[in-house]
Amino acid sequence: MKLVFATGNSHKLAEAQAILGPAGVEVQSYKGPEPKETGTSFLENALIKARAAFEATGMPAFADDSGIAVEVMGGAPGIFSAIWSGGRDDKTNRDLLLAQMVDIAQENRGASFVCTIALVTQSEEVTFTGVWPGRLALQASGENGFGYDPVFIPEGFEVSAAELDPEVKNAMSHRSMALGQMARFLSKP
Amino acid sequence: MKLVFATGNSHKLAEAQAILGPAGVEVQSYKGPEPKETGTSFLENALIKARAAFEATGMPAFADDSGIAVEVMGGAPGIFSAIWSGGRDDKTNRDLLLAQMVDIAQENRGASFVCTIALVTQSEEVTFTGVWPGRLALQASGENGFGYDPVFIPEGFEVSAAELDPEVKNAMSHRSMALGQMARFLSKP
Repeated sequence: MKLVFATGNSHKLAEAQAILGPAGVEVQSYKGPEPKETGTSFLENALIKARAAFEATGMPAFADDSGIAVEVMGGAPGIFSAIWSGGRDDKTNRDLLLAQMVDIAQENRGASFVCTIALVTQSEEVTFTGVWPGRLALQASGENGFGYDPVFIPEGFEVSAAELDPEVKNAMSHRSMALGQMARFLSKP
Repeated sequence: MKLVFATGNSHKLAEAQAILGPAGVEVQSYKGPEPKETGTSFLENALIKARAAFEATGMPAFADDSGIAVEVMGGAPGIFSAIWSGGRDDKTNRDLLLAQMVDIAQENRGASFVCTIALVTQSEEVTFTGVWPGRLALQASGENGFGYDPVFIPEGFEVSAAELDPEVKNAMSHRSMALGQMARFLSKP
């Protein structure tokens, strides 16, 4: 089975191939003109991107919308995670979030990584969501991963998501949860 | 009656004097060492600042914590409004919020100005909260006011809070509501 993944992010593509490959799904990246992300939720934005890819390619397509939701910010950055600093530079986004949270003590830094995947085919639209609980670090650490990984301490760990082996991260991340749900959905007879 | 207002913001001081003066309250500004705003709500941060001013001066003291709460951001910037861009420059904060919300259509830009005032005296601690509903503008306009006024369109208006006459703003703003509650509280026999 062949699916197009509407993403220009090589990290996300590699994660998807690692998780869906063993399920017999061949993942091709598709990078078309980016639709405006006018949705007000991860789900709406994932659908907007998956529909655009399906319409452009005529092939079954999926897209993800994901981000970090900080409790004391009411779930922000949320759908705005990728443009939090006004641009798309990961480090600038992370540094801004740490600066905003500078006076907030560790016990109030609860946060989750959230990923919603929308799959759009000729016959249906389905969505899958994974949530990875943890907290916002006091400072960045680690060289693996991307996005907010260096400032996210997963529940049960004392290191950031960027300090985990990619295999460990792929076994438990928000995106792997959502991709795993999709893999199970696709493998149903 | 004399109260110290823990603020270094001359705009807020003038607003408070305009509203409390007619109620017979003389407002003095107090600018001491700023306590860390470690609270997770407007109420907690207002109390932190008012307590610090009361302890430093020995006089009845009040402080406000206020900001803009954007619905699609789950209430953020909220308590982080003043340091939203990492610093305290109003224009940079506003421009960042507009950039984050660039793809969000007008019907989803609901926002409120929120102000909580804490009053701390020898005998009691009391808090007052005002909420001014409206929406986030698509771009800044207006020269009056301060903070997020140029990007906030109050409900019932088609202009920003920074385009209103100060008298009109002072009659309906979040801060005037909270100050009015405090004035009524203080004037009770």
